[in-house]
Order: sequence, then C-alpha cells, then structure tokens
Amino acid sequence: MARGNEHFRELDREYIFPVVERKLKDLTASHPDADIINLGVGDIALPLAPSVAGAICKATEEMTSSIIGYGPVEGYAFLRKAICEDEYSALGITAEEIFISDGANSDTTNIADLFSATSSVAITDPTYPAYLDTNILAGKKSQIVFLPCLEENHFIPKPPSGPCDYLYLCSPSNPTGVAMTTHDLSAFVAYAREHKSLILYDNAYAAFITSKNVPQSIYEVPGAKEVAIEFRSFSKSAGFTGLRCAYAVIPKTVFIGLGKQTISAHSLWMKRQNIKFNGVSYPIQRGAEATFFPKGKEETTAQVQSYLAQASLLKEGLTQMGFSCFGGTDSPYIWCKTPDGLSSWQFFDRLLHTCHLITIPGNGFGRCGEGYIRLSAFTTKEKATSAIERIQKLRNLPLTMKMQIFLLRIGSWNLKISS
Amino acid sequence: MARGNEHFRELDREYIFPVVERKLKDLTASHPDADIINLGVGDIALPLAPSVAGAICKATEEMTSSIIGYGPVEGYAFLRKAICEDEYSALGITAEEIFISDGANSDTTNIADLFSATSSVAITDPTYPAYLDTNILAGKKSQIVFLPCLEENHFIPKPPSGPCDYLYLCSPSNPTGVAMTTHDLSAFVAYAREHKSLILYDNAYAAFITSKNVPQSIYEVPGAKEVAIEFRSFSKSAGFTGLRCAYAVIPKTVFIGLGKQTISAHSLWMKRQNIKFNGVSYPIQRGAEATFFPKGKEETTAQVQSYLAQASLLKEGLTQMGFSCFGGTDSPYIWCKTPDGLSSWQFFDRLLHTCHLITIPGNGFGRCGEGYIRLSAFTTKEKATSAIERIQKLRNLPLTMKMQIFLLRIGSWNLKISS
Repeated sequence: MARGNEHFRELDREYIFPVVERKLKDLTASHPDADIINLGVGDIALPLAPSVAGAICKATEEMTSSIIGYGPVEGYAFLRKAICEDEYSALGITAEEIFISDGANSDTTNIADLFSATSSVAITDPTYPAYLDTNILAGKKSQIVFLPCLEENHFIPKPPSGPCDYLYLCSPSNPTGVAMTTHDLSAFVAYAREHKSLILYDNAYAAFITSKNVPQSIYEVPGAKEVAIEFRSFSKSAGFTGLRCAYAVIPKTVFIGLGKQTISAHSLWMKRQNIKFNGVSYPIQRGAEATFFPKGKEETTAQVQSYLAQASLLKEGLTQMGFSCFGGTDSPYIWCKTPDGLSSWQFFDRLLHTCHLITIPGNGFGRCGEGYIRLSAFTTKEKATSAIERIQKLRNLPLTMKMQIFLLRIGSWNLKISS
Repeated sequence: MARGNEHFRELDREYIFPVVERKLKDLTASHPDADIINLGVGDIALPLAPSVAGAICKATEEMTSSIIGYGPVEGYAFLRKAICEDEYSALGITAEEIFISDGANSDTTNIADLFSATSSVAITDPTYPAYLDTNILAGKKSQIVFLPCLEENHFIPKPPSGPCDYLYLCSPSNPTGVAMTTHDLSAFVAYAREHKSLILYDNAYAAFITSKNVPQSIYEVPGAKEVAIEFRSFSKSAGFTGLRCAYAVIPKTVFIGLGKQTISAHSLWMKRQNIKFNGVSYPIQRGAEATFFPKGKEETTAQVQSYLAQASLLKEGLTQMGFSCFGGTDSPYIWCKTPDGLSSWQFFDRLLHTCHLITIPGNGFGRCGEGYIRLSAFTTKEKATSAIERIQKLRNLPLTMKMQIFLLRIGSWNLKISS
C-alpha cells in the first residue's frame, strides 16, 4: 500500500464549515420554508462590480483575436504595477516584490513550503484554520506555539516568549475582527528582528480598516521590510471570492537560512511558484486591475462601505441587547461572546433553530474561540436588521428604550411591530 | 534566521526554461530584426475558441446580477458532470470522482502532499520537470527511482524492479511525444496491483491521441481503477493555458496507507484541497463547460487537429532530411535526435543562431534527454513550414528529390526558391 502522509491523522480539530453546512441542511430538510439568514462564511453578498465584469469580458474577447497563453507565473506586470502604485510604492516596495496568486488561502498555506521541516511556527488562537492545518500536514504539530487572543488582552496576541522561525498574524483578524495597531505590530516587528523570525502577515481585510492607528500595511511599521511577508486579496475588497485573485508581497530584503547560507525569500518563492504554479487566469488579472481604475475603485469602495455599515448595525444591535461584541470596526467580522455561559455550539444551535440564523462557532477557530461566535457582515442591510430583530426575540426581553430607539433609527421599527 | 527548506539546495538540475528565455533575449538584443520561430514552450498558437469566450463573458455578466461567491472547492457540479458524461461515465467513473483545479501542473505537484515523507517515487527520465522538483522539495531526492525512456525501449518506460509507493507516468509523453499503448500501460497496472503502488497518470495530452491502440484514459485498462489517479487539462485540448482549468480523477476505489489504517485517496485529496485551495474561478469553469457543447467541441477539436497537422509536417520534414524523430503522432511534441553527435545545447544553439528557431534541449528533462531536442507543434502551418526550410538550409544539403516533393506537397516550394 502506498504510504500516505500520516500527518492527516493529526488533523483532530473539528473542521467546522462542513459541520455548519450539515446542520444547515438538516434544518432545511425539517423546515423547508425557513427563511434562513446566513451570517456564517465570509462570502460576498453583493454582485460583481460592473466595471470589473467589463474588464474581464474585454480581456476574454481579446483572447479570441490575440494569442494570450501562459502568463508570467508571478503575475502580469500591469497588475503588479497597479497594485504597487496604489498601495505600496509610498512604502518603498517595488512591483517586482508583488506576486499574483489565485487566493490568499493558497498563498498563506503554500508559503509553508519555504520552511524547514524542523522549523517552529507561532499561530494565534483563535486563528484562520488553514494556517494551522497546513502546518500540521507538514508534520509540525509539535512545533506549533499558540498565541492566545483573549478578552483580557483585547484579542491582541503577544509575541512568543522564546525564539520561533515564523509566525502567522492575521489583522484585521479573521475570526475576531480585531485589528492590530501600529503599536501592537511594532512589538512583533521588534520580536522578529531580535529573533530573526519571519512574520507572515495576512492582511486580506486591509480594505476594511477605518481606525487611524491601524496601519494599512505592515510595511508602515519601521523595520518590517526585513522580517515580514504580507498577503492581500481581491476576495473581500472587490468581491472576488468566486473569481480568485490575490497577492503576496515579498520584499527582497527578507532572508531565510538554508544551512549555513542565507537566501532571499523572494527567490525561494519564485522557485517554488515556477515549480508548482502556472499563474492566474489572464482575464481575472484584468478584472483585478480594473479595481484600481476610478470607476472600479468607486464601485468596490461602495461595496466595502456597505459591508462596514452592516457590521456597525449588527454590532450596535447586539451591544444594545447586552451582548459583549468585539471587532466590526476595521473588519466585516463581529466576535460575539455567548450569553449565559453557553458553549459556542450551544449558542450556534440556539440561533440556528430559534432565529434561523447561521453564524460560526468560535471554537472552530481554536480553543480560545470557545464561548464566542463569529458573525459575518457580508450581508445586506435588510438581512442584518432582520437578524438583530430575531435575536431580540430570542432574548425574549421587553424592548428596552435604547433598543426601540436603535430599531427606529435603522428604520425597521414598523417591520418589527408588524412581524 | 528562519530555517528554510534545505531541499531547495538539491534542485541542482538546470531549470531550462529561464535559460532558454535568456538566450532568446540575448539573440533579440543582438539581432533585433530576427524573425524568430518559437517551437519551444508548449503554449497555444491559436486564439481562444469564440464559444468558450462567449461562455466566460456570459458567466461574468451573470455575476453582476446574481451573487456568485465561493464555489465548491472540488469544482461546480455542472463541469464535473460535463466532463464525466463526455469522457468517463462509460468507464464507470462518477462525477464525484472528478476534482476541478487551476492546472495539471498544480495537481501533479500538489498530489505529493498525500504521501509520507518516507515514501518512494518513480519518475521517468526524461520527465516533465515539475514532478521531479516537487518531490525533491519534499525531501525525497534519495527516494526517487528513475525509469529510463531511451531509443532502445522505444521511449516506453518499464516498471521499477522493486517496490515503490507511487509513480508518475505522462502519456502521451511530455517531452518525448511518445504514447503508451494499452499493452504498455497494462504492465504498469499489473505492477501497481502487485506492489500496491499508486500510478499518477498525467494524461494532459489525451486530446491528441490518434492511435487506436493508445487508450484515451488509463481506466480503459482493466484493474486501473484501484491503482491510478488520472490528470487532464483544458490547457492543450482547448487552449486554456492563459485561462487555467484542469481536473484530477480520483476513483473512490484508490486507497492509501496511513499507518496501519487505509484511507481513500479521494477523501485525503478532499481534505487537502479544503485546507489549501479555494476552487477555480466561476466564469473559467463555465468556459471549460462550453468545450463540451457542440459548437465548443467543434472549435476546440479543430484547434487540436491543426496542431496535429503541424506535428506531422514537422516530423515528416525532419525525417525526410534524415533526422531521427519520435512522437508527434499522438502528441504535439516531436523528440528529435541531435545530428553529428551534438549535445542538446549545441544543437539548440545552432538552431537558434543559424535558423532563429527556438526548441527545448532534451537534457533539460533529464539525463536520458541528452542528445535530443523537443519541438513543439503548437504553431501555425506557415511557421512549421518555414522552420523546416530553415533547418534544410542549415543542413546545407542539396535538396533531395524526396524533400523537393515534400516541400511541393505542403505548397512552400516557391517560397523556398524565392527566399
């Protein structure tokens, strides 16, 4: 029998999304008419921006008359340049340091190929599950250090106490929705410089940052350009979840040790990509480019603003009802503490069965996520409002004056009365 | 310093494509007016089929009114079903056993994640380089067994003499262009069944098969469904090199050992993909689906026929000049023996500098490729004809009667006289 990767057996964490899917399917089977509101998976709730669609169609048409085959593995120069000019040139990053890919998920997991099997890795708890699982599959389960993100540290991790080869940070965080400030990140940059660690900075939600003290890029932090790789995506900033386009920024000043030598992470990644990847679809890269043109920028910014408005609505509504909520300011995610000592799954089940509302149990993101649920603001105003109303009913409380004012303000008081 | 994957240092093989690119660049710099014919990289030479482009645009437009976000990681049911009905249902394969991906390169390299670090792997020599490099990066350099493909065995590998966990076979072969017959493959299936090995069958060039005794799929060989995973791609069959779409067929009857347990390769791959991949762009999958509709099939079949005609023209022309050529019948590739004892690079350089013709030196695909070059028939009739004429000049031979007849037949005799 061909010997398989035995580390698959160490993936003991419950993979939550399939379980959530199954519970949803069961509910739909037993209540076929249920009007379910999905605040679970962080997927888009608005259609594709017209100018992005136009650029994709134009590029596809172009392929019927010009010969456009394999593109550069690292992405087309037009897209790398557009990203650089819009987001990075002021930070001293060049277009050559930007690699286009089919998703931040691919990038943040594939990057593990660059590191030794004996290297140690720090991962926050809770975390986006793919970082953890990909490192478990690479046989590093015993070499993982967890960095807890709890209410007492305001969900901001502290650097590891000892040395560590590389660290995953996601900010604004998936799942907590909390963003690290320049001050918070400086501590990690200082740590990485001291221990010669490498920070893998997942900044897929950069477009949602509104707080002045939260940097748009880790490279705003002095010294980061020698110790950090940054990942971003068009998925959430421009509704590309179904189109697949993202990018990794690997400054040529970031080095990795290979035995007694050192080599730039940039050249290792280029080698890795040349071997295992063949580039991103040309029309999709043209679509991504269009998000930097005035019309595309206007359209995609409006989408992000809309999601942020829903985040604010959900967070305010839940807070008014007395829930402890975090995130939702620089992020489309709200991290909500379960009431009455309920476990994550208990609260999830209650919301699902009583409110027909899908969320994600926090424990699916790690042990420190127990006692929380994640709500996604990738939804419409109507659905966010309705979700709040349903939860209010669940609480079975008389409407407080504050809550009445809140519902009046968001224009759904009448809806509430009549329902 | 973060400890890197030391196996990067074991990638000692010269990565040929960048070297070829550099030599081309040098030539263009010194001879800016050179009319270079590229028979190197196996990229498309014909524009995208209009009905595929139409399907991509329609799907993109659809995304501006419907909410189409993350698709299934394993691909949309519509595409898996279309592939299955067209190519696999008669072989007892179900749509559920087909996984959509962004390229056969990604699939054939990522599949290595399923195997133990201690497992052994057999790879043909010459080989498509990515199989080798990805297994070297995974730390298996000392566990690789090479299966030589030489003139004396008609470029058909023999199964390893001892046990081996998994084997890569590419048929019709890249680079030799030679295809394995049902009889040849049966020997491997018997080997795999005896040793409980797993065959990774790269069948990306299935669309080019014309010989009756060459199976369209490895599953035509009795017993293969328990021991083989097959990879195919839209890249070459439908000109998708710039669009990125392919698929892996993993029958649920293929098992892998995990310690004392066995588990289906299908479920391991599903787990792997759920962790490290997020699916293929929706409009691209709609484009791939269109290749199975009557119009799309007609258009893409015509493209393949055109490339096969160029392969025949190149092979016949070279053979008439006295070169020993292989492949080119069930494949867009011709494997040409270098004349006069030249090395691969020497013949490559001569063709480049004297004929302004780009090929790929055979030694770039492995030691057994030394003494050969690969010519790609992904070109037009005009360019293939011109390439033959230029090589004829290089040979500096008086035109043989046979060659005169050949050139007359392909209608380029006058061109030859006047040039």
